[in-house]
Amino acid sequence: MERITVVKIGGNVIDNPAALARFVERFAALPGAKILIHGGGKLATRLAERLELEVQMVDGRRITDKGTLDVVTMVYAGLVNKQLVASLQAAGCNALGLSGADGNVVTARRRAPQPIDFGFVGDIERVDPELLRRLLEAGIVPVFCAIMHDGRGSLLNCNADSVASAVALGAARIAPTDLVFCFEKRGVLRDPDNDASVIPQITAASFDELRSAGVVSRGMLPKIENALRAVADGVRSVVIKHADDLLAEQGTVIR
Amino acid sequence: MERITVVKIGGNVIDNPAALARFVERFAALPGAKILIHGGGKLATRLAERLELEVQMVDGRRITDKGTLDVVTMVYAGLVNKQLVASLQAAGCNALGLSGADGNVVTARRRAPQPIDFGFVGDIERVDPELLRRLLEAGIVPVFCAIMHDGRGSLLNCNADSVASAVALGAARIAPTDLVFCFEKRGVLRDPDNDASVIPQITAASFDELRSAGVVSRGMLPKIENALRAVADGVRSVVIKHADDLLAEQGTVIR
Repeated sequence: MERITVVKIGGNVIDNPAALARFVERFAALPGAKILIHGGGKLATRLAERLELEVQMVDGRRITDKGTLDVVTMVYAGLVNKQLVASLQAAGCNALGLSGADGNVVTARRRAPQPIDFGFVGDIERVDPELLRRLLEAGIVPVFCAIMHDGRGSLLNCNADSVASAVALGAARIAPTDLVFCFEKRGVLRDPDNDASVIPQITAASFDELRSAGVVSRGMLPKIENALRAVADGVRSVVIKHADDLLAEQGTVIR
Repeated sequence: MERITVVKIGGNVIDNPAALARFVERFAALPGAKILIHGGGKLATRLAERLELEVQMVDGRRITDKGTLDVVTMVYAGLVNKQLVASLQAAGCNALGLSGADGNVVTARRRAPQPIDFGFVGDIERVDPELLRRLLEAGIVPVFCAIMHDGRGSLLNCNADSVASAVALGAARIAPTDLVFCFEKRGVLRDPDNDASVIPQITAASFDELRSAGVVSRGMLPKIENALRAVADGVRSVVIKHADDLLAEQGTVIR
């Protein structure tokens, strides 16, 4: 394998049928070995509401109790993952959906209950590159939801950005790996109101300057820090771009 | 591979946590290459009720409209499949969950809308033994739900017994394959009220006699016909037995 591209799409693409159809077409056309990680979107929240599950929040973050875990497992690992796989198959891309439990490909550790018990929420512990290698060598495209397992029978809800970084690091042990985060902007913007102000490249050094100058918005900080860490740990590059630009040389490259 | 065992469990096991835990332990202990197919159980019906979906029935059979398809995809491909895979992993069995869309392993054809339009219901069209072979050779245990796809982007709800037969026939192209249907009785009974009256073996010839003598109950007829067809088409044997007897030499052997 010459290279592997790991692409992450978020809820904004999942929730928009037209955007999702455009993405499926572009992702299917992306050449070479590739892996997709998808977030969940608003469907899980809507289903939880219809089931009248109480949503418990602490510090603006949802607590994943057993009922919520069942809902996100149904929506992310079931509906969203299988619809996406079927759409990719129809577009000629040999997709295969995975949770972390499948083939024991990703294990997570339940987050410590102190200071806040977030419930069935996990942090990635280990990615098995061997199964990824077998699938990629067979021309199969792994499609991950963010539901992982602890290896002791519990499913755990994880952060899809963290899954993408961990899977990209696993892939980097097979071949040079580029990680693409698709989001709703054209890249990291100098001026949030100006889509033409995309910063073409960020390095660890330039990030310090941008942060000191207050250029990077608060919401982008963890995304860029996450990307810089992935690069430091062995991912060749991270690109933050609009889902519609997947096949174009656009966005912010972090390396 | 010397042999492959394909096991099917129905809703009666899925719906009973203690029976399911016993089954997981036994299935994990089953030696050699193996594949599991699971039905759905009552969870999908309960979820549909909680969502106040109207269940449309024709001739005692549920119509799978779009809302129902989404529910069975969530429950069978999401919750049931992933919980089962995580439990098997915890028991030391390297399970990997699949719908038919995953790796394009099974395609189905939407059932003709005449005389009754059952909606998003499919009949199995093709099983790809190549992906099964790759997974089995890697020591992976495929775990199928009965959600398949038509290859053109639509998911389809299929009959789990038919999926089991079709997958067993696909497996038979790799190695001699035995198919096990687990159900709530110890086997095909001569006397439905006497669990000790298990008929040890049925062949095409003896089935005609049993049917003429009115020994086999109406509910068992399609199961046995299905089994005889699988044997005629290349499955080495079909065993109908209780889930608790998975590791025991019990039940009715059809060959």
